[in-house]
Amino acid sequence: MDFLFYLVPAASLIALFFAWLFFRQMMKESEGTPTMKEIAQYVREGAMAYLKQQYKVVVIVFIVLAVFFAILAYGFGIQNSWVPFAFLTGGFFSGLAGFIGMKTATYASARTANAVSRSLNSGLKIAFRSGAVMGLTVVGLGLLDISIWWIVLNAFVHEASASQTLVVITTTMLTFGMGASTQALFARVGGGIYTKAADVGADIVGKVEQDIPEDDPRNPATIADNVGDNVGDVAGMGADLYESYCGSILATMALGASAFFGDTEMQMRAIYAPMMIAAIGVVLSIFGIYAVRTKDGAGLQQLLKSLSVGTNLSASLIAVCTFAVFYMLGFSNWWQLSLSVLSGLLAGVIIGKATEYYTSHSYRPTQKLAESSKTGTATVIIEGVGLGMISTAIPVITIAFAIILSYSFATGFSFDPALITKGLYGISIAAVGMLSTLGITLATDAYGPIADNAGGNAQMSELDPMVRERTDVLDALGNTTAATGKGFAIGSAALTALALLASYIEEIKIGFGHLADKGGELAAQYAELAKANIPQIVEHFNITLMNPVVLTGVFIGSMMAFLFCGLTMNAVGRAAEKMVVEVRRQFKEIAGILEGKQRPDYTSCVRISTKAAQHEMIFPSLLAIVVPVLVGIILGPAGVIGLLAGGLGAGFVLAIFLANSGGAWDNAKKYVEEGHLGGKNSESHKSTIVGDTVGDPFKDTSGPSLNILIKLMSMVSIVMAGLTVLIHG
Amino acid sequence: MDFLFYLVPAASLIALFFAWLFFRQMMKESEGTPTMKEIAQYVREGAMAYLKQQYKVVVIVFIVLAVFFAILAYGFGIQNSWVPFAFLTGGFFSGLAGFIGMKTATYASARTANAVSRSLNSGLKIAFRSGAVMGLTVVGLGLLDISIWWIVLNAFVHEASASQTLVVITTTMLTFGMGASTQALFARVGGGIYTKAADVGADIVGKVEQDIPEDDPRNPATIADNVGDNVGDVAGMGADLYESYCGSILATMALGASAFFGDTEMQMRAIYAPMMIAAIGVVLSIFGIYAVRTKDGAGLQQLLKSLSVGTNLSASLIAVCTFAVFYMLGFSNWWQLSLSVLSGLLAGVIIGKATEYYTSHSYRPTQKLAESSKTGTATVIIEGVGLGMISTAIPVITIAFAIILSYSFATGFSFDPALITKGLYGISIAAVGMLSTLGITLATDAYGPIADNAGGNAQMSELDPMVRERTDVLDALGNTTAATGKGFAIGSAALTALALLASYIEEIKIGFGHLADKGGELAAQYAELAKANIPQIVEHFNITLMNPVVLTGVFIGSMMAFLFCGLTMNAVGRAAEKMVVEVRRQFKEIAGILEGKQRPDYTSCVRISTKAAQHEMIFPSLLAIVVPVLVGIILGPAGVIGLLAGGLGAGFVLAIFLANSGGAWDNAKKYVEEGHLGGKNSESHKSTIVGDTVGDPFKDTSGPSLNILIKLMSMVSIVMAGLTVLIHG
Repeated sequence: MDFLFYLVPAASLIALFFAWLFFRQMMKESEGTPTMKEIAQYVREGAMAYLKQQYKVVVIVFIVLAVFFAILAYGFGIQNSWVPFAFLTGGFFSGLAGFIGMKTATYASARTANAVSRSLNSGLKIAFRSGAVMGLTVVGLGLLDISIWWIVLNAFVHEASASQTLVVITTTMLTFGMGASTQALFARVGGGIYTKAADVGADIVGKVEQDIPEDDPRNPATIADNVGDNVGDVAGMGADLYESYCGSILATMALGASAFFGDTEMQMRAIYAPMMIAAIGVVLSIFGIYAVRTKDGAGLQQLLKSLSVGTNLSASLIAVCTFAVFYMLGFSNWWQLSLSVLSGLLAGVIIGKATEYYTSHSYRPTQKLAESSKTGTATVIIEGVGLGMISTAIPVITIAFAIILSYSFATGFSFDPALITKGLYGISIAAVGMLSTLGITLATDAYGPIADNAGGNAQMSELDPMVRERTDVLDALGNTTAATGKGFAIGSAALTALALLASYIEEIKIGFGHLADKGGELAAQYAELAKANIPQIVEHFNITLMNPVVLTGVFIGSMMAFLFCGLTMNAVGRAAEKMVVEVRRQFKEIAGILEGKQRPDYTSCVRISTKAAQHEMIFPSLLAIVVPVLVGIILGPAGVIGLLAGGLGAGFVLAIFLANSGGAWDNAKKYVEEGHLGGKNSESHKSTIVGDTVGDPFKDTSGPSLNILIKLMSMVSIVMAGLTVLIHG
Repeated sequence: MDFLFYLVPAASLIALFFAWLFFRQMMKESEGTPTMKEIAQYVREGAMAYLKQQYKVVVIVFIVLAVFFAILAYGFGIQNSWVPFAFLTGGFFSGLAGFIGMKTATYASARTANAVSRSLNSGLKIAFRSGAVMGLTVVGLGLLDISIWWIVLNAFVHEASASQTLVVITTTMLTFGMGASTQALFARVGGGIYTKAADVGADIVGKVEQDIPEDDPRNPATIADNVGDNVGDVAGMGADLYESYCGSILATMALGASAFFGDTEMQMRAIYAPMMIAAIGVVLSIFGIYAVRTKDGAGLQQLLKSLSVGTNLSASLIAVCTFAVFYMLGFSNWWQLSLSVLSGLLAGVIIGKATEYYTSHSYRPTQKLAESSKTGTATVIIEGVGLGMISTAIPVITIAFAIILSYSFATGFSFDPALITKGLYGISIAAVGMLSTLGITLATDAYGPIADNAGGNAQMSELDPMVRERTDVLDALGNTTAATGKGFAIGSAALTALALLASYIEEIKIGFGHLADKGGELAAQYAELAKANIPQIVEHFNITLMNPVVLTGVFIGSMMAFLFCGLTMNAVGRAAEKMVVEVRRQFKEIAGILEGKQRPDYTSCVRISTKAAQHEMIFPSLLAIVVPVLVGIILGPAGVIGLLAGGLGAGFVLAIFLANSGGAWDNAKKYVEEGHLGGKNSESHKSTIVGDTVGDPFKDTSGPSLNILIKLMSMVSIVMAGLTVLIHG
């Protein structure tokens, strides 16, 4: 069976090869006029400068944490000795994925704008293929890191039994997930603050106060705004999804190893399954990417269809292949496990559709939201908040069904506590299925900001308005396809986080193993607990909802989701205020800007965003790392499990609320701009612009960061389980 | 020991006597000029008309539910035969408390305005004593209902053992809590929608569009706005706190009966303790009310001090008396249990102070929020949301400490699962302690809307502006004292909801008892479960956070909090839009309104609010009742416990966020109105008005309703436990 494993690094290399290929193809295109080149250069430099700054901060955090882990591992022996290294590689690859994606995006936008002036189709192709570079880089690097660690750890780790070896290997690998999560959180938070500070600042002064359009070269914040799209929506998202992708695979591998503890053969199968599904998904994604092609002169509907053809093709094929994978790996319950994956996939689709329903202005909710602008700004805000909160119902009910179904399929519809790990394996593999076609779904996500930037470039280079109209079409298309992508991202986050709860228990057991090895009076008892199953550990620590410690954890977890959002939200508010002050200053002090006779000082705005993002990202991100450690030390495993469950429950719902409120405000504004309710420059338009501005940090800073927060808290808890056991064992 | 019980009905009658006394004193005052009388009459009629309509709807709901319970009780024998009646009386008394409070308030406002024109002090006295009518009515009726049912059930219920009898009696009494909660939810939601629809509508057209001040008689929605204060902030709050008060006492009684199961003597003590603390609290509240007196010509600081003297006196005395109560009742751990109560009391104070810090414009957070108005409306909204989210940290950490401490004191710092019920008794009694001085704290809460209405009356009657200024001082004072009141209300809700989890398990056991009585194959097993302790039940249903059913429940519970808020928020938005349209219509169609030559048509606005509130309150309220039933039927007890924990975690934090964001926006506006940042009619003022308007449904509709939602879901689950056991036993 071992030869099957080599499909995984092979798939990784294939993905990276095609990423390189698409990158080269894109680079061959012309960047257009000198002005276009110049502007692209501005944006690229701003983005790179920011990323450099961000990585500087992150490197310090990583060094500190790695040293801390090293002390735990080598000093106290309560941590696996591979952990510091695994942690570092996770962070490195996650950052690299974001970096490559962003580099590509900043090269692609001017080229897209230039191609669009030829035809919509050529523009789509460049933008989409450039998005695919990021998609394939993320999955390629993800599988590469997983392959390398699997090979290395297999060569070096040897525990008492083969079964134990597999458990230790897979849980160690989880810690590279923590590295990826940490990197992703900084990237999302920092990038999110950057982009929204610039966006909000640009909108408030430009659109609301001065009545000049978006991306107008007269607006001093416009370059910063375009840089922001790259560092937030591209680099941030890349790091984020790298983390989701690896996290789901690693969690499933770890669960597989513990679910079939004692049966090495089955353990191997269960470990291989997620990797295989991911590897096949890579190949199918590339199929799908090539399937996205349209005739020249295609309309929006046809474009949408051709994008859907690609993603649907990949998704359907992966569904079929899942059955083959489980069958080939020799699972006796191969079709049940495949149904687990299917229920996850289906849940992702339903959540995506629900997102589309609540946030697209083709449907009633957003139209009604737009109509509330007739009675002013306050009603737009109130109804937008209401809409977002109501929109949480369908995704939550869907995920509830997905949890119960994927669990039940995996256990043969038994809720016997002894089968919990097997059931959670079903939930976890469903998340892997959801994310297996990430290569293409991420392409449909990442091409949006590229098209957006292409529009910005066209506007600033004062190209024919037709070009901007076409990029707007591409952008709008991206919003629709991104809804589905978001459904998968958020759904998989919830499922993966659930699976990580079980991995935490496994790590607790390993912690008992370490304690037992040290000998002492309680060694025999520790050894016993190291071999216990989930219900026994649950009983030992009294992890029930009647335990006040668990409930305290639930409260703190729920609070963490809100506190974290509040901090990032205020960071955006503060940074945006600084931006507004600067933009106002320029309009006032630099004569001739508004007449277009004098270029504004773009770099000072870029500097404000960079500084604010760097400064503001640190506290909330560290909080996400420190709180689980403190809860572990003070309240023990019962408190930690409560914390994770509370954070997951409130965080998941809050994330949907924020994303959908923000999305609906954005599209309500677009609906008015399309000529409804008085159209552009009407009072309704002004009200919806405020809504859109408020929604910016909701949907692009705080909301998406929550996905990572939820998982990072789990990862941190897992990595720190050894310490927790030492104190509360 | 039984004679001690009679202190409870005695305290109840004392409270009701003083309520009557204060009411009579207030009625002796003059209502002022004919215009003042006329306006007061308008408001009174509007309020009564609304309440009549609301009760009509609620009566139907109550009849349907009572019939349903009767079918469960008499048809299927899975419900106690007293439940339908207990349910009805809870609803009746809760409604009555709100009704009396509101009636008093509508008589008091013109009298307060009139007295204020003499001196600030006489105004304070009338407003505060009228608030005390409601405070004393709530506690008086609460203790009355508890006393009656205790006497009735003791006379009629006889189970196999005396110990069992006490458990059945106390859990049956909990169902009158469900009646109170149901009534309270309708009152809060309906009243909240009414008041905010009118307020938001009046503000948008009056303040933002027409630049006329608050409560201006030219504004057609101004009477509706004043009616709203009465039906929302007075009647709604009265019903709400009646529910909180009774809920905490009843939950503690039920826990006491089960914590000391088998030892009838100790059971009786544990049941008497919360009633005794409440009874003594009534007397001490009356002391405190009489202690509130100032010299004529007192300034704001002195007024605040004299109010604080009253509440602090009552709170300190109750702290001392708690030790005496537990000692007299012969608890061996009397001082530890008293420390449980103290930790609850202290937590309430800290939460209140934190609320004040985040929402009062004497402190930095709200001042900063006001400053963000310099960069426009969007930043005000973003920073207000951020502020609210961040402000959840201190209350949650405080309540976490209170939970752990009050639990630990009660168990002697043991976390042995066998002692869970005793520990939860400690948590629950802490909530009783928090609410024991409700007689006076509610007076400081309820006098705010009375002062507010007095100001409205003064404005509309075109009295000397000095009168309005003085009522504004009283109103501002009320906002500060209300912050502490809110701290106690929200803290006690969290603690009570925790305690209700344990009552749910008790009711599950009683359900098994019913099943065992029916005989059949499994009768022996059921009988066993009926005698099980909490850990055994937890194990039987696998109520751990590793069970996917529990986690599914957590997700749904978190979602319920958001969905419920979204529905009520949108209801306010929709109703406010209708109001805006009507007000605009009147300004346009009725000539001479703005010049003050023609009275606007107040009644049409009153009608819009009444109709909207009635129509919109039904769906969210029913949802709160139906969802726990459905979760019980589909997912069983494990799902229900998950639902309650998730709802509690997310709901508690969400409630704080909404209350504090709303409060901060309100005071940021006041800060600007006091002359900062450009003062009235500046751009900053307009931005903060939008913030205040958005915050209205946050803090007065959705936020406070969550407190009830959390407990109502628990109560419904408890009442329906029999059915759940029948299906999932």
